[in-house]
Amino acid sequence: MTKGEMLYEGKAKKVYLTDNSDLYIVEYKDDATAFNGEKKGTITGKGQLNNAISTIFMEMLNAQGIPTHFVEKMNDNEQLVKKVEIVLLEVVVRNIAAGSLAKRLGLAEGTVLPKAVVEFYYKDDDLGDPLINDSHIEVLELATPEIVAKMAEYGRKINEILVDYLKARKVTLVDFKLEFGITPQGELILADEISPDTCRFWDADTNEKLDKDRFRRDMGNVEEAYQEMLRRLGGVEA
Amino acid sequence: MTKGEMLYEGKAKKVYLTDNSDLYIVEYKDDATAFNGEKKGTITGKGQLNNAISTIFMEMLNAQGIPTHFVEKMNDNEQLVKKVEIVLLEVVVRNIAAGSLAKRLGLAEGTVLPKAVVEFYYKDDDLGDPLINDSHIEVLELATPEIVAKMAEYGRKINEILVDYLKARKVTLVDFKLEFGITPQGELILADEISPDTCRFWDADTNEKLDKDRFRRDMGNVEEAYQEMLRRLGGVEA
Ligand SMILES: Nc1ncnc2c1ncn2[C@@H]1O[C@H](COP(=O)(O)OP(=O)(O)OP(=O)(O)O)[C@@H](O)[C@H]1O
Ligand SMILES: Nc1ncnc2c1ncn2[C@@H]1O[C@H](COP(=O)(O)OP(=O)(O)OP(=O)(O)O)[C@@H](O)[C@H]1O
Ligand SMILES: [Mg+2]
Ligand SMILES: [Mg+2]
Repeated sequence: MTKGEMLYEGKAKKVYLTDNSDLYIVEYKDDATAFNGEKKGTITGKGQLNNAISTIFMEMLNAQGIPTHFVEKMNDNEQLVKKVEIVLLEVVVRNIAAGSLAKRLGLAEGTVLPKAVVEFYYKDDDLGDPLINDSHIEVLELATPEIVAKMAEYGRKINEILVDYLKARKVTLVDFKLEFGITPQGELILADEISPDTCRFWDADTNEKLDKDRFRRDMGNVEEAYQEMLRRLGGVEA
Repeated sequence: MTKGEMLYEGKAKKVYLTDNSDLYIVEYKDDATAFNGEKKGTITGKGQLNNAISTIFMEMLNAQGIPTHFVEKMNDNEQLVKKVEIVLLEVVVRNIAAGSLAKRLGLAEGTVLPKAVVEFYYKDDDLGDPLINDSHIEVLELATPEIVAKMAEYGRKINEILVDYLKARKVTLVDFKLEFGITPQGELILADEISPDTCRFWDADTNEKLDKDRFRRDMGNVEEAYQEMLRRLGGVEA
């Protein structure tokens, strides 16, 4: 697989063309941002750790019948993925109130929700990724109602799979963000990453945070938390 | 009808018990607020004008088969309404981008929407009446999915009726906010008010604002705009 031109540099990853027109290479960076890019920093080793962690989750979901963009881990910082056109919606699934949901609904952080909450955010950095509803999605033509329903359904299904998987590893899945894309063949598949950058993970016994909130809130031991997550998932550090 | 104890004083109206346990008296005040109560003022004559304007809209909607809380206009500032338990959701229907929608979706104010947008806001002043979705409504148990669907359906139906009615009176209906309530008999009905406080009205030819945005944005001639709306609806000033 030959790495071609860089297509896109995001806040956490770079995306490259390859000599296969259906595949991209994703390179995981150590850069970290929070609060819509207002806070910037570096987490040593994050690129490798997230590449390894996302690989474990994506392989597991693939095995459970969820179609994903993941093809293979190439090396410490890179993975090969199927090229998609990203749907401009971030799907957030929540089991426990934290972050913006706690604020929006006036719930104490840590409140267990009676049922998983599914939210759609408009993927637009300039607008600060605002929460939107089905009616907004329709008017902006971000996705058809069928695609939206399918994304919500996949979101709930992935949540069930991840909750069980993580519970067995002494981790509580508080919430997470997913991105989906459409392949050149028209299939909706899970894309982007699943990592401590995009999920809230709490130690099942102590509620200790094992995710990017340690960076957002200047709690220290950020790299250690990502390493601990990889260890719990049975992954081996490079 | 004897006016009893004051039950509730809101920002724009007072609600009183009556000697009929199924009816309330609503008294319209001249007080005006904006930006979740941050901006405060008085619009001389607003109470009378909104009482008259809301009466016209509610009578018209009743005649068109929309169940409402409106019973009768009693005098300049008061009307008799059916008592309801207010659903803690504000339903906003929009035909043209303005205010918070323009900001949220990055649309220029005045952009005609390809289809009416329906939004639900959590009626909670302390939280600043946040936008919420069906999943939030379910988790907060603010209304059953059936009630939510019915509110959205009434919202779209009321929008169609109002758009036509106002077009004939040279007014463009940009957007509006509705509140619904449940009667002691369990019926979902339209409650609260429909007035320049709760709608955006633009002159159909000049786009001149004929609503509370004149107060929000310090544009002057606020009272005159409310008077003009009442005139266009064929109402008579006291
Ligand atoms: N399989 C894929 N095909 C195409 N693009 C992808 C794929 N998987 C992820 N992407 C996109 O690649 C980018 C990854 O970069 P990164 O996560 O750093 O972006 P970001 O800084 O979060 O910015 P953005 O707001 O665009 O997501 C994202 O835009 C993501 O949507
Ligand atoms: N038929 C009704 N029965 C009971 N309450 C009603 C009825 N119609 C309206 N209300 C309620 O009466 C109050 C009217 O007062 P006002 O519009 O001044 O309130 P407000 O300042 O907007 O505050 P709120 O945030 O409670 O709406 C509102 O709380 C409204 O929901
Ligand atoms: Mg990203
Ligand atoms: Mg009110």
